[in-house]
Amino acid sequence: MSGEKKHIVIVGAGFGGVKLAKLLAKEDVEVTLVDRRNFHLFQPLLYQVSTAILSEDEIAYPIRTFFRKNPNVEFYMAQAQGADPARKVLLTNHGELPYDYLVLAAGATTNFFGMKTVEKNSFGMKTLSEATHIRNHILHMFERADKCEDEAERRRMLTFVIVGGGPTGIEEAGAISELIEVQKRDFHRLDFNEVSVHLIEATPNVLPGGFSDHLRQYTIETLRKKGVEVHLSTGVVDYDGRDVKFKDGSTMATKTVIWAAGVKAVPFVAECGGEVDRGGRIIVNEKLQVEGQTDVFAIGDCAHYQHGTERPLPTVAPVAMQQAQTAHDNIMKLIHGQTDLDTFHYKDLGCMATIGRAKAVVGKTKMNPEMTGFLAWCAWMFIHLIRLAGTHTNFTVAIKWWWNFLSGTRLGRIITNCEEPETVKE
Amino acid sequence: MSGEKKHIVIVGAGFGGVKLAKLLAKEDVEVTLVDRRNFHLFQPLLYQVSTAILSEDEIAYPIRTFFRKNPNVEFYMAQAQGADPARKVLLTNHGELPYDYLVLAAGATTNFFGMKTVEKNSFGMKTLSEATHIRNHILHMFERADKCEDEAERRRMLTFVIVGGGPTGIEEAGAISELIEVQKRDFHRLDFNEVSVHLIEATPNVLPGGFSDHLRQYTIETLRKKGVEVHLSTGVVDYDGRDVKFKDGSTMATKTVIWAAGVKAVPFVAECGGEVDRGGRIIVNEKLQVEGQTDVFAIGDCAHYQHGTERPLPTVAPVAMQQAQTAHDNIMKLIHGQTDLDTFHYKDLGCMATIGRAKAVVGKTKMNPEMTGFLAWCAWMFIHLIRLAGTHTNFTVAIKWWWNFLSGTRLGRIITNCEEPETVKE
Repeated sequence: MSGEKKHIVIVGAGFGGVKLAKLLAKEDVEVTLVDRRNFHLFQPLLYQVSTAILSEDEIAYPIRTFFRKNPNVEFYMAQAQGADPARKVLLTNHGELPYDYLVLAAGATTNFFGMKTVEKNSFGMKTLSEATHIRNHILHMFERADKCEDEAERRRMLTFVIVGGGPTGIEEAGAISELIEVQKRDFHRLDFNEVSVHLIEATPNVLPGGFSDHLRQYTIETLRKKGVEVHLSTGVVDYDGRDVKFKDGSTMATKTVIWAAGVKAVPFVAECGGEVDRGGRIIVNEKLQVEGQTDVFAIGDCAHYQHGTERPLPTVAPVAMQQAQTAHDNIMKLIHGQTDLDTFHYKDLGCMATIGRAKAVVGKTKMNPEMTGFLAWCAWMFIHLIRLAGTHTNFTVAIKWWWNFLSGTRLGRIITNCEEPETVKE
Repeated sequence: MSGEKKHIVIVGAGFGGVKLAKLLAKEDVEVTLVDRRNFHLFQPLLYQVSTAILSEDEIAYPIRTFFRKNPNVEFYMAQAQGADPARKVLLTNHGELPYDYLVLAAGATTNFFGMKTVEKNSFGMKTLSEATHIRNHILHMFERADKCEDEAERRRMLTFVIVGGGPTGIEEAGAISELIEVQKRDFHRLDFNEVSVHLIEATPNVLPGGFSDHLRQYTIETLRKKGVEVHLSTGVVDYDGRDVKFKDGSTMATKTVIWAAGVKAVPFVAECGGEVDRGGRIIVNEKLQVEGQTDVFAIGDCAHYQHGTERPLPTVAPVAMQQAQTAHDNIMKLIHGQTDLDTFHYKDLGCMATIGRAKAVVGKTKMNPEMTGFLAWCAWMFIHLIRLAGTHTNFTVAIKWWWNFLSGTRLGRIITNCEEPETVKE
């Protein structure tokens, strides 16, 4: 061991980056955690911000507060732009940062699969500001439709399209259909028969991955009961902001397309000297090192790990957090001069998705049976509440969820960008 | 009475506008409430959003929800642009709105007294987006200062200037000084001796209006104990975004000037056919009618009422709400063909201001003695909690206040505009 403390730079304060920094905080090393945002985002609940159930600061926590008692962990608010492995520095928009070990935990962004018009005119669902833009936009559409005399135009404003039948798309569609129920009480004149919610999925079924056919069927039926029209085997090819066009040539008039159909790694990881896959994810070996480098690791949604698995691992928090543990162990081994690095093995903790209020699906694992309905929803709520980072926030989130469950109302239905009209899509 | 229901258009969903609409909702009339925002803003707590104590949606309520059970009250989300009294229509960015009676309750905006550089480079404190901009900016200054090697530049980033010694300026200065205490725990390396908070007041004393000299002295002493430097008889003349310049020619290096030094009526009221005063407020007679018109009323911060008072009434919620009552009574008298309109008389309910956590001042009225300290703070908290509009919000706000009081932490310290860098002032 060298006499000077090793410096580990982690890019990204998501589930993987924060977990890794917490593990390294206990070691005799220096850590710098880099993120362009000053908060850790609890992404699984982003759809609740986009549908006015929760406030922004209930799913976003100041990163520094996690490391209040860890003077060896520094936070650096900056946009990472690339790495120079030869000089061992991370490049950011606020200067260079030298490292002994670099861990890329930078996460994913929306994948529009190269469709420029769709990217320009639809809403992504990966960032906090995207979630508030969706909320502002949906609420604004109701206000404008309420005063619109042209029926076709009104229906266009009141048609809400969610693309992507994964958990995010399903949770968003369920939450929007319930938001509409709340809006019904507040609009005296609007004809709610003109309102429709559409879930579009390119493949023949919803919920890929660990869900059984029974759970998929249950999900589709539950969505339909809530008034969501589910369109399977329907691919989007174009969207000009007024009409979304499908692969078969048909179109749908809508001012709202929410894109939850795919993710890709953030572009920055391609600038770090490693090889990337089609989804822009950096390819790592079974020790989680970037191929060809010993001191650069990658974990979570931005890493492509495919050893002993049929396909790349799912882009979910448990993968990132388990990889954080392995990355920690291997970095400490390297620091201590050991060469027997650990191989990463993913332990599947199962999968779940809510379908609006009081309904959910939970996939079968070794620990639990398959669940649907209210019981699954309680399990979902419990897991998410205990995982939420701030103890106080747990409390207000729990209150809001029960309030929402009992009264069916949503308090956060405010349009916050109306004072800056250029940001309102009309 | 005519057979058709009269249509009353109210511009502005502040304290006055909402109160008036609630009163008119019980009458046999049609009401349209116009506001460019879809929410009513609880302005007295704006400073708490700007300093990360409360979330946006805890002080902003969907306007429509107030009138859920009143089908005769319509909400129209639009920016009022003027009125044409000859044709009896209100002009908005979403078309014209005919009225039988028009009530201007459009409120006030920040008055920079014609100083263009100050207007361009400092932060107003009148809207929700201004409050979140202040929060984002203050937190961002800490992040940048933490990584800045240049001491002069660092001190500039860590110098926070609040202009205006009224309740808003005092509450903001107190809240910022406490936010700094929270930041202290989260920054391991920053030298907090470089941080300073300055309250600038052009006149020789703080808290004009109903506060006694004793309360003013107490306020200044309390602020100083909290580390706020109070500068009296100090007028601002220029601010280029880097150095604020005072009347005596001296300057102060700062990246943050928060302007709470004056208000003026929103410009729109000058386009409604009446005469306006120096502060842009429309002049009303003692019946609250706009001078020279019988069917146009003005109430609250946008109205100039000066009958039997030494100077224009203060720009506070109780004035607007009491005027709403008189406007309601007089409009109903006109509808019923009565000519004996009521004269407005203001009943002073007193004045209060908080000075950070657990300290406040309450002015003497007929109902209560003068109060300072913890007791005054409890009174302030009680009054504000019962006035908050949503019952559920009361509950989470109460939790947050007690949490803040007991632990001294602030959970909402997130920079929400970092994903759109052009909006971050660097």
